[in-house]
Amino acid sequence: MALIPAAIIGKKRDGLALSKEEINAFIAGFCKGEIPEYQMAALAMAIFFQSMDAAETSFLTEAMLRSGECLRRIHPTVMRVGKHSTGGLGDKTSLILAPLLACFPVHVPKLSGRGLGITGGTLDKLESIPDYRTNLTQSEIEKQLSDVGCVITGATGNIVPADKKLYALRDVTATVPSIPLIASSIMSKKLAESLDALVLDVKFGTGAFMANQEQAQILADCMINIGKHMGVATDAILSDMNQPLGKAVGNACEVNEALDVLRGSGPADVTDLVLQLCAKILVLAKQFPSVEIARSELQTQLHNGSALERFERMVMAQGGKLPSPVLPTAPAHPLLSVQRGRIVGIDGQKLGLAVIQLGGGRKVAHDSIDPSVGLIMEKRLGEAIERDEPLLQILATSQTAQDVTPLLQSAFTIV
Amino acid sequence: MALIPAAIIGKKRDGLALSKEEINAFIAGFCKGEIPEYQMAALAMAIFFQSMDAAETSFLTEAMLRSGECLRRIHPTVMRVGKHSTGGLGDKTSLILAPLLACFPVHVPKLSGRGLGITGGTLDKLESIPDYRTNLTQSEIEKQLSDVGCVITGATGNIVPADKKLYALRDVTATVPSIPLIASSIMSKKLAESLDALVLDVKFGTGAFMANQEQAQILADCMINIGKHMGVATDAILSDMNQPLGKAVGNACEVNEALDVLRGSGPADVTDLVLQLCAKILVLAKQFPSVEIARSELQTQLHNGSALERFERMVMAQGGKLPSPVLPTAPAHPLLSVQRGRIVGIDGQKLGLAVIQLGGGRKVAHDSIDPSVGLIMEKRLGEAIERDEPLLQILATSQTAQDVTPLLQSAFTIV
Repeated sequence: MALIPAAIIGKKRDGLALSKEEINAFIAGFCKGEIPEYQMAALAMAIFFQSMDAAETSFLTEAMLRSGECLRRIHPTVMRVGKHSTGGLGDKTSLILAPLLACFPVHVPKLSGRGLGITGGTLDKLESIPDYRTNLTQSEIEKQLSDVGCVITGATGNIVPADKKLYALRDVTATVPSIPLIASSIMSKKLAESLDALVLDVKFGTGAFMANQEQAQILADCMINIGKHMGVATDAILSDMNQPLGKAVGNACEVNEALDVLRGSGPADVTDLVLQLCAKILVLAKQFPSVEIARSELQTQLHNGSALERFERMVMAQGGKLPSPVLPTAPAHPLLSVQRGRIVGIDGQKLGLAVIQLGGGRKVAHDSIDPSVGLIMEKRLGEAIERDEPLLQILATSQTAQDVTPLLQSAFTIV
Repeated sequence: MALIPAAIIGKKRDGLALSKEEINAFIAGFCKGEIPEYQMAALAMAIFFQSMDAAETSFLTEAMLRSGECLRRIHPTVMRVGKHSTGGLGDKTSLILAPLLACFPVHVPKLSGRGLGITGGTLDKLESIPDYRTNLTQSEIEKQLSDVGCVITGATGNIVPADKKLYALRDVTATVPSIPLIASSIMSKKLAESLDALVLDVKFGTGAFMANQEQAQILADCMINIGKHMGVATDAILSDMNQPLGKAVGNACEVNEALDVLRGSGPADVTDLVLQLCAKILVLAKQFPSVEIARSELQTQLHNGSALERFERMVMAQGGKLPSPVLPTAPAHPLLSVQRGRIVGIDGQKLGLAVIQLGGGRKVAHDSIDPSVGLIMEKRLGEAIERDEPLLQILATSQTAQDVTPLLQSAFTIV
């Protein structure tokens, strides 16, 4: 019997679970244009209200994944591993994690995205490196995994077209904030990397997509279920984003900070998060029996320069030319505290908006980015500050630094 | 500030009330094609879940009404009155009500529709009369109101185009069963008749759109509110549709039954419902101080032949040729009870489906109709029946009568 789209929408509207066959038919029909956007929009809104159970969410992810191609596996015996972060201010962990993991006998085929809104994008950060290519072909990805073990590039042409089409529709129909829709969107793209093991970094707090830990946990559980259903060893950590990760927020300055971590001298919070994620991944990929052992081995590779060398090989393999000692950034202008006290709040939304205003992020998808601008945090949450002591440094021209000063001042709550 | 459609959808999704300006902008944009169908579909689904308050529903009705033209008022001093039924099996009240009301100094400009699904349409019934025209122009409607006082015709070209577009979209996006969307759809079309007084007949039961009395009451209250907001004296009655109204279900046979009522010899339930509706309307239209007085005057017009004569004038004015004594119908085949007992249930859905199978109704909008077929009920709910006594007569050819027999048998619960 042919499936009737309106009947499928009605079933979800009434709170019933959709079958695998119904979800497959709907997504396939939507991709082919046989099911019009208005029916997909109505279904998305019904999902917003009625949600989806674990099985439905997995079927949806699988249907989206199957709408396009996955990366080919060239070495079936080498474990392929991945990480996904839901995005947070100053999150440069991917830049460190991929080469660090590649020091072990695993492949890290990372398909990353660009920034939109207040959180930055890994591709934008890497493109601060002159000539770094983010448009590798499938064959180039395969070759680089063989040669270097890791790659960070953009999604190739036909990766999860259903998600591209559905996300664009959700964006204009107020159906973005739905856990099963978010989870299936993320997981379909990650599973297209054809992984064996995946760790998710779900951020919560003022600088993140999920405002609180409870919501982050629900999203994490939902994605872990999908991963398991699809036969990928999956785990998640929740990480606090009530202040930027590390000190640098921007593009070139974040690459510089990643290099610091790779040299063993980066901020403790970044280093610790990378080690946590990598240890979990290597245990899931059966490289070590416990996260303690994995962590110790990871620290060795970080401190003996292997991870840094692997990063340099990855950059070189993708055509990039790393300047020494650091990437150039705009001049630093201190943002001075107007009062003495203790920092009890840092509004990540405002810091992110300030970076966009400096030219370091995008308001709309086609905005161009100035990699040299950004912020360098001088103080962390809970620290004491004197009047006229710098809260942060603004990397920008004097004029734009001055323009964003009121916004940046308002981002700090000092008591 | 320009209104952003996705923000309006998001507001309704989050359970907030939309402003008049937002609703106007959305409906106007939708009609002009500036707001795509997928955004309207998402909003309709959000309304399904979050509903609309009385003010929002009135604004929506007004916005839809304003998308097209209303009937012109030619005699500003003559009260214009109307009735709308939500549709029920065997409901031929409009055919009697319009000419009966026209015996009083009011105008009855009735725009009716065709049947789709199990409930019949007034236009289909009237088209059983040879040459009856249902496509009168605005000028023809005006002239006939002056000459006869009543008209029953199809909606002219540009009546509430927003409803046509929105209803078609709701039909394929599982957003039909929403009280504010149903109420605004009905009321925008009724208000296009430019009425002073309106009575709604909201049906409930197995043969009606609303399954139970509580839902019917909610819909009635919603429509009364809209009418009052738009300055039209509006009231409603709830009527039981757990069995067909009268004995005849079909097209020609229902016209014949309406003529019986107009001759004073029709079934009591039809006559009583018509008198109830008309009395309420005449009181709302300030023709009589109480329904009791109105009812007595109405009975006079029914019994002295005035209403029948008015019906004949209306048919003639619209080109129709009423055969004497009745419209021809297909041969009658009795449906005999297979058991002895008491009738405790009559499933209107099944009776309606049987009429469609006989060719007397439509499955899809372009189906043609055979006016001669139908059912004549012999027994009512609660009555005793003997084995082999007829439950009803099937008006059809022998073959089709035989085909629908199992379905019709299953419509009766006899204990």
